Amino acid sequence: MHLLNPLRNLLIATLFLLTAPAISLAESLPSWNDGDTKKAITEFVESVTREGSADFIPEDQRIATFDNDGTLWAEKPMYFQLIYAMDQVKKMAPQHPEWKTQEPFASVIRGDTEKVLASGKEGLMKILAATHTNMTAEDFQSAVTSWLQTARHPKTNRPYNEMIYQPMLELLTYLRANGFKTFIVSGGGVDFMRVFAQETYGIPPDQVVGSSLKAKYEVRDGKPVILKLPEVNLIDDKEGKPVGIHQYIGQRPVFTAGNSDGDYQMLEYTTAGSGPRFGLILHHTDAKREWAYDRKSHVGQLNKALDDASKKGWTVIDMQKDWKVIFPASKQ
Amino acid sequence: MHLLNPLRNLLIATLFLLTAPAISLAESLPSWNDGDTKKAITEFVESVTREGSADFIPEDQRIATFDNDGTLWAEKPMYFQLIYAMDQVKKMAPQHPEWKTQEPFASVIRGDTEKVLASGKEGLMKILAATHTNMTAEDFQSAVTSWLQTARHPKTNRPYNEMIYQPMLELLTYLRANGFKTFIVSGGGVDFMRVFAQETYGIPPDQVVGSSLKAKYEVRDGKPVILKLPEVNLIDDKEGKPVGIHQYIGQRPVFTAGNSDGDYQMLEYTTAGSGPRFGLILHHTDAKREWAYDRKSHVGQLNKALDDASKKGWTVIDMQKDWKVIFPASKQ
Repeated sequence: MHLLNPLRNLLIATLFLLTAPAISLAESLPSWNDGDTKKAITEFVESVTREGSADFIPEDQRIATFDNDGTLWAEKPMYFQLIYAMDQVKKMAPQHPEWKTQEPFASVIRGDTEKVLASGKEGLMKILAATHTNMTAEDFQSAVTSWLQTARHPKTNRPYNEMIYQPMLELLTYLRANGFKTFIVSGGGVDFMRVFAQETYGIPPDQVVGSSLKAKYEVRDGKPVILKLPEVNLIDDKEGKPVGIHQYIGQRPVFTAGNSDGDYQMLEYTTAGSGPRFGLILHHTDAKREWAYDRKSHVGQLNKALDDASKKGWTVIDMQKDWKVIFPASKQ
Repeated sequence: MHLLNPLRNLLIATLFLLTAPAISLAESLPSWNDGDTKKAITEFVESVTREGSADFIPEDQRIATFDNDGTLWAEKPMYFQLIYAMDQVKKMAPQHPEWKTQEPFASVIRGDTEKVLASGKEGLMKILAATHTNMTAEDFQSAVTSWLQTARHPKTNRPYNEMIYQPMLELLTYLRANGFKTFIVSGGGVDFMRVFAQETYGIPPDQVVGSSLKAKYEVRDGKPVILKLPEVNLIDDKEGKPVGIHQYIGQRPVFTAGNSDGDYQMLEYTTAGSGPRFGLILHHTDAKREWAYDRKSHVGQLNKALDDASKKGWTVIDMQKDWKVIFPASKQ
């Protein structure tokens, strides 16, 4: 006994060290300036994770959902997935000589983005159908993977998966270190985001919820494949976000982050749950280091959610004031 | 340095102990008889988790999917969810005097199960619509929760969530201890299974994939709710299983278990992936301790998958021969 006891005690002490929060608060959100926003986040997390606290939330209920475009990565000059789609049209053009005279394809090929956007929802749906459907899930995945390796953002010349917000990466890590399960809930395409979410955000494919197409199972030449059909399954935006959360996650989140009116219903659904809840809005206020836009922006319009934030108790990040850095150091 | 080094070494040693497999193989599947089936499972798991092995599978790709009805819990005399639905019809009958003369409700109320089943798909859809739709997700969840607390299986008198297979619980635990992420992929209703999957199987709601209805987000009297609509979203059976896996999990599994031809496509999709894969079929062969059924059963028919198992390299559990016990000790 007297030989084993010291070892046992050390084991217990070590286990305690291992289970105690690995990082101190000051260290866990280093890219956040001290102030009300950071304080609101850390106070919430501390109170819901402290055993015995009136606000304690058991670990299996610590569900955190994050919008992607404009919340985890940038969305200017336009949604990156749309840039992907236009790049694919250009790549596929030699096999489609008819596109030279067909809109919106002709404008895409000429590089006339203004005119492409002016083609509206109908035009964009044609581009999405041509580049996202009637192919196997694996072929789509390969195409996105190789695009990410070579495509560069027009303003920063960074790979798109480096146009991500360093402070939000830290927030994801901080939440996970405190027992939260982190999910993406985005209007973007689920198959598109799943290509990079694990490596970029540490979020596995099954924790990505997004807009989706219907799919079909087929055995082609003896090989089972999933075929992406040209038919919408879920638009995971606005009222579609709580629906997506219900269908895919099956629990109401206790923490949610977004940046636009497309996240209004997710914020509302999350923070109306009983017990402590946290709603976070990223306000793009930094024209110098990123972009400044809100009420009148075509991409990521933030109007009603900004009006109601204070009344609803949602915390608003002022990007310019709250963040020390925007993007992580480039790996290139 | 000389003060810290011994502590560091002990920390490393402890960490090693903590990350080494916690349970020896003999102990991890105690309800499985030694034999080819158990050996096939443990050899697969050992080879894909051994660093440096040619068959090594990184942890983020260790996706395991399990059917529920007839694979994790029993499905006789009929699917438990159908028993729930019929119990609900009886409970709701006082508010629906018209049901006394309307089929299939009249037969349900009289307890004439034969006649209910004879009403076919159309009759069953009416029962499902009456008991599963036009209600909020939270109300449905409460109703299932209270049913599980009081309802008892007609043959064993156990609560339905104790009609689960002890050897499969051990298999789930064993896979998780070896870095697998375990999912349910079932023809059963996702909202129904999510009520008990965490407590019963240790599988959280977001790792349950099942058949689902369309849903709608609504703010009712200032309270945001999810409404279950009388419209099918996904039938997660046969060809629907690989589709459900793609939509919800987003990765092809490396391990899958089922018990009927409804799992054929999931087995095929899983085991056709490149690299090592494991397909497992539970053959109900134990008329004494459970039920014996396969090719001619209306519930859980196992015919084509049994024919093709050997050719496809799927491992078949002979329940009578491979399992020491069927159900866990009752908590009642």
